[in-house]
This record gives sequence, C-alpha cells and structure tokens, in this order.
Amino acid sequence: MTIVPKGYRFAVAAAGFKRPDRNDLGLILSSGPAVAAGVFTTNRFQAAPVLVCKAALAESPLARAILVNSGQANACTGDEGLANCHATLDIVSEFARVQPEEILPASTGVIGAQLKMELWNQAGLRLAGTLGRAKPMDVAKAMMTTDTFPKLVSKACQLSGGEVRLLGMCKGAGMICPTMATLLGFLLCDADIEPRAWREMLTYCADRSFNALTVDGDTSTNDCLLALANGAARVRVSSKDDLESLRQCMLAVCQELSYRIVQDAEGGTKVAHIVVSGAKSHPQAELAARAIGNSPLVKTALFGCDPNWGRIIAALGRSGADFEPQDVVLNIGGILVFEKGQPAPEDLDALLAPVMRHQDVKIELCIGPGRGTFTLLASDLSKRYVEINADYRT
Amino acid sequence: MTIVPKGYRFAVAAAGFKRPDRNDLGLILSSGPAVAAGVFTTNRFQAAPVLVCKAALAESPLARAILVNSGQANACTGDEGLANCHATLDIVSEFARVQPEEILPASTGVIGAQLKMELWNQAGLRLAGTLGRAKPMDVAKAMMTTDTFPKLVSKACQLSGGEVRLLGMCKGAGMICPTMATLLGFLLCDADIEPRAWREMLTYCADRSFNALTVDGDTSTNDCLLALANGAARVRVSSKDDLESLRQCMLAVCQELSYRIVQDAEGGTKVAHIVVSGAKSHPQAELAARAIGNSPLVKTALFGCDPNWGRIIAALGRSGADFEPQDVVLNIGGILVFEKGQPAPEDLDALLAPVMRHQDVKIELCIGPGRGTFTLLASDLSKRYVEINADYRT
Repeated sequence: MTIVPKGYRFAVAAAGFKRPDRNDLGLILSSGPAVAAGVFTTNRFQAAPVLVCKAALAESPLARAILVNSGQANACTGDEGLANCHATLDIVSEFARVQPEEILPASTGVIGAQLKMELWNQAGLRLAGTLGRAKPMDVAKAMMTTDTFPKLVSKACQLSGGEVRLLGMCKGAGMICPTMATLLGFLLCDADIEPRAWREMLTYCADRSFNALTVDGDTSTNDCLLALANGAARVRVSSKDDLESLRQCMLAVCQELSYRIVQDAEGGTKVAHIVVSGAKSHPQAELAARAIGNSPLVKTALFGCDPNWGRIIAALGRSGADFEPQDVVLNIGGILVFEKGQPAPEDLDALLAPVMRHQDVKIELCIGPGRGTFTLLASDLSKRYVEINADYRT
Repeated sequence: MTIVPKGYRFAVAAAGFKRPDRNDLGLILSSGPAVAAGVFTTNRFQAAPVLVCKAALAESPLARAILVNSGQANACTGDEGLANCHATLDIVSEFARVQPEEILPASTGVIGAQLKMELWNQAGLRLAGTLGRAKPMDVAKAMMTTDTFPKLVSKACQLSGGEVRLLGMCKGAGMICPTMATLLGFLLCDADIEPRAWREMLTYCADRSFNALTVDGDTSTNDCLLALANGAARVRVSSKDDLESLRQCMLAVCQELSYRIVQDAEGGTKVAHIVVSGAKSHPQAELAARAIGNSPLVKTALFGCDPNWGRIIAALGRSGADFEPQDVVLNIGGILVFEKGQPAPEDLDALLAPVMRHQDVKIELCIGPGRGTFTLLASDLSKRYVEINADYRT
C-alpha cells in the first residue's frame, strides 16, 4: 500500500500532447510552503523547465507545487520555450492559488519542439477538476513515456519526534532517453527539516542511486530530481540520529526507484550490478564501471546471455582507469573468471551459462590494492532498444 | 587493378580456427629487410601478438614479414599465450627462411581462448605451399571476421627519383568488435625511407584516419596498424617534397580504408561524417565528435532515418567539451537546423527526410569562435548489430 505523506494533493489531466487517450499532465500541491531541493542534469543544454526550477530554487528554498508533463521536453527551444514554460505556471497558479514562482516545472518528451500552448490552456480546467481526487500513482503514470510500468516507492520513517513519511516517484530511463528527456524523479516528505540539511541529503542519495545507473550513457537535457518536505507531520528533524535515519530512508527509496528504472530500461531484459573495487580512488572506480556499463559489446553479450567475459576485460582496459593488468580479478555471479592476466582454468562457458540467464547479473572487478569503489546498475542492449529508438518519432 | 609494391610475396592457408572451409591465416613476406613501423591499441590489456610486435620494433626498425590469423585473438591469455605466439613465428621462420624476430604477428578473434597449436602446426606446410602464388586480396580475405567485404587499397606515388607503390589492407571494425579484436591494418611500400620518417608518417596518417572513426566506441585489445617499406623500388625518399608526397599518398590510402571499415560496420547501414569546428582546441573538438558518434540514440536515429536532431545537441551537451550553448550552429546535410539556442524556423522534418535516407550523412557542428576541429566517421546502430553481437559466440 502506498504510504502518502501528509499535506499533499495530486491532480492529473489528459492534454493530448502525444496521444489523446492518456493522462500526460500531473500536479503535486503542498498544503503549505515546503522546503525544496533539486538535483539537475549536467548537460550543457538545459531544458526550459530545468532553467526555471534552478532559478526558483536559487531565489527561495521553499516551494508549493510540482507540475509535470510528458510528451514534450521543452528543451532546445530558446526564449520562446522559456516564455511558454512560465505561461504554464500561470495557468496552474490561477486555480491552485499559489504564486507561479512557487511551482517547480518538469517536462519529458521530444527535444526541440515548442510546447503546444493551446492544449495547455484547455487542460488547465481538467487538471483543476481532479485536484485532491487523483492519487500519487496517477501522477506517476502521467509522467511515463516509454516506461512499461509506473515507478512509485514509499516508506515510513520512525524518528525521535514521531513518524514521517517519504514517497518517491520517477519516470525512466524507460530505456534512458527515447528522446533524451528522461529521468524525472520527485520525493515528497512531511518532515520538518532545514533547507540546507534537506539539500545535502538529496545530493548524498542521488549520487548513490540515480547518478549510479546507466541505460545508454546519454545524459538528458531534462533530468531532474526534486524533493519537497512540507513539515505537515509536525515532526522536526534536527538531531544527528534523526537526520541519519531519514537519510537512510531516502537512500532506500532512491535506490529502489533507480533499480526499477534499469529494470524498465528500453528493451531491457537484464540488470547488471557492476561492482568495481580496489581502485586508486572512487572516481577511478567509477570510470572503470561506466566504461563497462556503457559498452555496447558488454551490453549485447548480456542480452544474448553470452558469457563473453573478454568484452568486460577489454572495456576495463580502454576505460582510462589507472591499474595494473596483472592485479585484475573478475568474478561473475560469484564465479572466478579471470586472474593474473589469464582465464581461470575451468570450463567457464558451462559454469557461467546459468548465471547469465538470470535477470540480475553481478559483475565484480577488483582492480588493485586501492580503496576506491563504485557500484553501477546497467541495462543490456537489445534489438527492441534499437527498434524503439529508430522508430520513436517517425 | 591492385598496384602491388615490389619485393613482397603473399601466402594464405585454411587452418580451421573457426570454420574449416575458409582461409584464416595469411603471410606477407618481403624479399629483403623492410623499414617497419607500428601503431598499437591503447587498451591496458594488450594481446600477445601486440606485445610481441612492440618488443620486436623496440629492438630493431627492420622486419621481413607479417603473419596474421583470424578466429583467435590470443588476448588475455597470459604467459601461455605469449609462448604460443612465439611458437607460431618459429613455424613460419623455418620455411620462410627469416628469423622469428623479423616476423610481426597479428591476431583477431575471440578474447580469452588459447591458440589451437595443433591447427597451427598442420597449417604451416599449407601456408608454405602457397607462398608467392597468393595475392594481396587473398590475405585481405583471410583476415576477415564479420567483415562482409575485404578491404584493399593501392596507389602509385610519383617522387623525384621515380615511382613508388603503396598498398594497404585492413579488416573491420566489421562492426567494430564482435570480439573486440578488431582493427588490423597493414601498409606495404617499396620506397626506401629512414625508419624515423616512416614512423612519423604512419602516426600522422593513423591519427587522421583509423584513429578518427568509431563503430561502437569499444577499443580492441588487438588493434594494430603495421607499415613496411622495403626499398625494392630503389627510390630514396628524403627530400621534404618527396616525404610530403608520400605522406599524402599514405593518408589517402588510410582514409579510404577507414571509410570502408565504417561502411562495413557490423549491421551498419550509414556512414556519418561528424565535423566539429570552432572548438577551443582539437582535443575539445574530438571530445564533442566522439560523444555524438558513440551516442546510441544518435546512432539509432541514423539507422531509423529519423531527423531527431535534438539527440545530437543533447550528446554534444553531455560531451564534456567546453562551449557556450548560444554559440552552437548545427547543419545536417547542408541544412541549417539549430542556431542561437533554438531550432531553425523551417519544417525541418520535411527538409531533412531525404538527407537522412542517404548512406552518407554529414553532421556539421560549429561550437564557437575557436580553431579546434575534428572529423569523425561513425556507423549507425541497427538491430543487426545487436543480433551479431548477442549471438557471436553462443
């Protein structure tokens, strides 16, 4: 059962941005000002809603609402796109009785097309009509593009002053980036917390979840993860223990959502858990893990259930990470595969065949005596991925 | 017609490394010592033949022969692989009447399996039997793996002292890297040239051809480009003009071979010419070009003939290259698509549709006022690529 934090209402509408028959517009409204934090794409081209969110959060650490649409990314749309984004906030502002600058916008869809404002104008009333009647799951569904299932996770967290609730939702990475306008994630909490602590908690959790997964290595122009804490539970979070408890709760929610993104990767059939250890630093371990997780050859071998481990070693070798080839130890699904520069003297194909058929495949590489580690979740690369992305628009 | 440099003989044999019915072993033998140069993979794991070549060239700038096999990469095979590689040189040394250390070995195939030495022993005699009767094209065919056509280019070059001939052959990148043991290239010339000048010429040309293409971004453990100049034409190349003429000739051969590699990329249907200019430096331009050329989303859009230019912009945005988004100008097939942060005010889909149907698609990005440029050839990503690489071994 979904645990819904106190003091939030939800609304959805079918605006028809891409298809006429499904909800593609969602609103999350807090009953009072919520402490807000955001983590955004590092892409040099940032979509209009990303720019608007960043400006709003730079101006004030409080927000009242999140407005999300699927079907149009509003990225690479220049000044017109920015003006359109503001116009959508005005529409919501009227019926939701909040200031436009208190609303955080998020969009996902095809890059480079201007918003269809006539559809937005018509949809405003319908959105207002469902306010308070829609459920969190309805919003999670409205933000889907090629996702095959909605992604919603919620948890209660016991703190010294009482219970608070945390709800997270996101859209994939439903094969990261049919349009590169991919990852949207929202976290809602009813705790009462300082803005700075809330921001730090979000960054900590994002680095260990959403920032540690890959579907196809393409970082979207629209990626954003927004977090609201409205204090409606009347539980103040300030002691070190309480902050740590809430952080662990948030991390669990973020990691569960991240797993579901990779599980629902476009055309994906597998989730590879790539664990690199023994590197000279964490960034070095990350470099190695990402080269493997983004290698088309590793990904197609995963798809084909082919224990072609040489591709993993070769991807590590070209990763740019600093290590000695002789030090590298590779285990797949707990089976020793490669050590001291050569294959383990077993019938590896026979041993690995059943391991490769699992949905979850653990690839562990120790690359030296260092203390740097990184764990990356990666999807495989299937014919369906190519189909989806070759035919996405045309 | 193939222009064959003087003083080289060729041999091939069917050893049965992968299939019984086709030649998979080739030998190129120079009548006298040839000035030799090599460019090798930067992968931290280097195949046994790569290590042996590098050691030989470090010891002496002269070589007599190149020995190549397909079907087995002899990579990640440790000391046993190194000993096996030397044993194959001994086999050839006997009948070819050259020292083992005068033979440069090259292998391509699956990583991680030891050479099948019993097949090598049997194949030695058959190889000896064809010496002088085989043609360059036979060797070009023997080194193929998933290549769909052999790659051979030859040119004559007029110098002040007379004519010299340059012949190049390579194997793909037949979709770079069914096994990551991919790119092998050999250049044969009958000019008389200093070792240092020959090495510099090779590096110059490799950087502007083989090192400026991508199929799937995975750098092989076995990549090598070897060049022999045996002086059999009795034309000395030492003047600045002659060196420049020969260099241009070599560059033309290398670029033609490189084009054919991308044209014959695994499952490939398109060759994208990605031209980045205006960057702050050449490496910055290369960073941008490679992010685009390796983006699965750009590659699937190319495959689908989808003018989804937002993916090109988004890949540029995440490339790590330093530029101002407002400065970026994108042209595809000569059509202005994106400028000053927004799309050109045309019906781009209609204008671009015919452009995207060509086999060759030119993607030009000017990203600022700088002087850094880079041109990359890249293949698309098709369902066939996934099929080939998911099923390669199993």
